Amino acid sequence: VGIGPGAPEWRAPAARAALESSSDWVGYGLYLDLVADLASGQAEHRFPLGGEENRVRHAIALAKEGREVALVCSGDAGIYAMAALVYEVIDLEPARIAVNVIPGISAFQAAAAKAGALIGHDFCCISLSDLLTPWEVIEKRLKAAAEGDFVVSFYNPRSLKRRDQLQRAFAILKAHRPPDTPVVIASNLGRPEERVKIVQFGEFDPADVDMLTLVMVGSSQSTSFARGDGRTYAYTPRGYAKKREAAE
Amino acid sequence: VGIGPGAPEWRAPAARAALESSSDWVGYGLYLDLVADLASGQAEHRFPLGGEENRVRHAIALAKEGREVALVCSGDAGIYAMAALVYEVIDLEPARIAVNVIPGISAFQAAAAKAGALIGHDFCCISLSDLLTPWEVIEKRLKAAAEGDFVVSFYNPRSLKRRDQLQRAFAILKAHRPPDTPVVIASNLGRPEERVKIVQFGEFDPADVDMLTLVMVGSSQSTSFARGDGRTYAYTPRGYAKKREAAE
Repeated sequence: VGIGPGAPEWRAPAARAALESSSDWVGYGLYLDLVADLASGQAEHRFPLGGEENRVRHAIALAKEGREVALVCSGDAGIYAMAALVYEVIDLEPARIAVNVIPGISAFQAAAAKAGALIGHDFCCISLSDLLTPWEVIEKRLKAAAEGDFVVSFYNPRSLKRRDQLQRAFAILKAHRPPDTPVVIASNLGRPEERVKIVQFGEFDPADVDMLTLVMVGSSQSTSFARGDGRTYAYTPRGYAKKREAAE
Repeated sequence: VGIGPGAPEWRAPAARAALESSSDWVGYGLYLDLVADLASGQAEHRFPLGGEENRVRHAIALAKEGREVALVCSGDAGIYAMAALVYEVIDLEPARIAVNVIPGISAFQAAAAKAGALIGHDFCCISLSDLLTPWEVIEKRLKAAAEGDFVVSFYNPRSLKRRDQLQRAFAILKAHRPPDTPVVIASNLGRPEERVKIVQFGEFDPADVDMLTLVMVGSSQSTSFARGDGRTYAYTPRGYAKKREAAE
C-alpha cells in the first residue's frame, strides 16, 4: 500500500480502504505512525529502517496464514518501495497469496507540484543508492539522463557510508545543463517540517542535503521565475518549440 | 487538479477538496464527467480534447475575476497536463492569482501496479507526441533511455497524423533489451473497460495500441512470470546484484 508522501490529503481512497480492511499492518515504524488515524485494532508489525527483505518476508508469512496484510510504504508502493521485492520473493518462492499493489503519489510528484511544475515534460527517477546497484550502472544512467535532457529526480541522494554521490551526479550533469537550471530540494513533504527550496544548478551545495531529502534537477528547458508572492517557481515547458521561439 | 487515472479510488483527498470548494470547473469534457459525483452547482467549462492553451487561458481569466477555479486534469496535474502550461502563461504574462498544483497518481503508476511492479527501479517517462517537441529531441531521449537501461513509459504513443512513433521507439530500444523484456499495454485505467496486458518485447505489435493507450517497456533487468491465478505479472528487481547472482 502506497500512502503518498506524508500528508493524509495525498492518501488515495484505495490506500485508505486497504488499510482499514486489513488485519495486520507491516512497515517501517514512521510510516505506520503516518496512518495512525486509520487504526482500528490492526496488529502492528513495526520494523526499523532498512532490512526491507525481512519486512516483506514477514508480510508474506502472515498472508500465508490467511491474514489480510497491508505492507505500508511511503509514496507509491511500486517506486523504490516494497512491491517489487514482494514479486521478487514470490517469483523465487511461489506462494498461494493474492497480491494487490496500491499506487500512490510519490515524493517527486509532490515536490514538483509544491515548486511549480518541474515535471511538465519528460523526466526520470534515479536512485543514487549503491547498496544493491553497482555505481557503474548508476553512472551510466546519470550520463543517459544528462544527454537525454530529462528532468531528473534523485532518490536516496546520500547514505550513511557514502556522501559523494550527489557531487558525482552533478559533475556528470554539468556539461548538459545551463548554470541557471532550477534545482528543487525537498524534505519532509506533507509534514509540518516540510521544506521545498529552489536553487540554481550552479549554486547547488550538496551539504544542503541529507539522507531523507529529494533532489530534482530540471532539463535544459526548465526555468524559474519569481512571483508577486515573493516566492520562486520552477517549471518545464511542455514543448521545445516555444522556448526556442521566445529566445530567437 | 490531478484527479488520478479514472477511478475515484485513486483520487486523493486534496483533489476532492479542491473540486468541492471551487466555483468553476474547467477541463476536457470527459475529465469533468469523471468527477461528476462531486458536483454541487459548480459552473462547468467543458473543452474539447486538444487546444490546451485555450483551456488554461480561460481558467486564468476566470481566476482573475476572483473565481475559485479547478482546472481538471487526468492523472497528475504536473505530468503531461496543465500545470506547466499555467506557469508558462503566467511567466510570460504575470497575473495576480494564486496557483496551487495538486499532484495525483499518473497512468504509468496505475498500469505498473496492475501489472505487478514494473517501476521497482529507475524509470523514465517520454511523450512520443511531436506536436510541440521536434522528433530529433524525442529520438535523442529514446536513445538515452535505451542506453541508460531505464524502465520506459510512453505517453501519447500515437497521433491522428503520425502512426509510426512506437515502431521507431521500439527499433531504438531493440539493441538494449532482451526479446523477453516485459511490455505493459494499458488502456482505460480505472474505468470499466480497463485493459492491462503484458507481452514480450519481441512480440509487441504496435497495431495493438491506439491514441489513448499507455505503453511501458521494462529495463534489461525486468522480468515476468505466471502465477497460480493464471495471470502474468511483470516486475523490475530493486537491485542489480540479485538477478546477476541468480544468473551466474
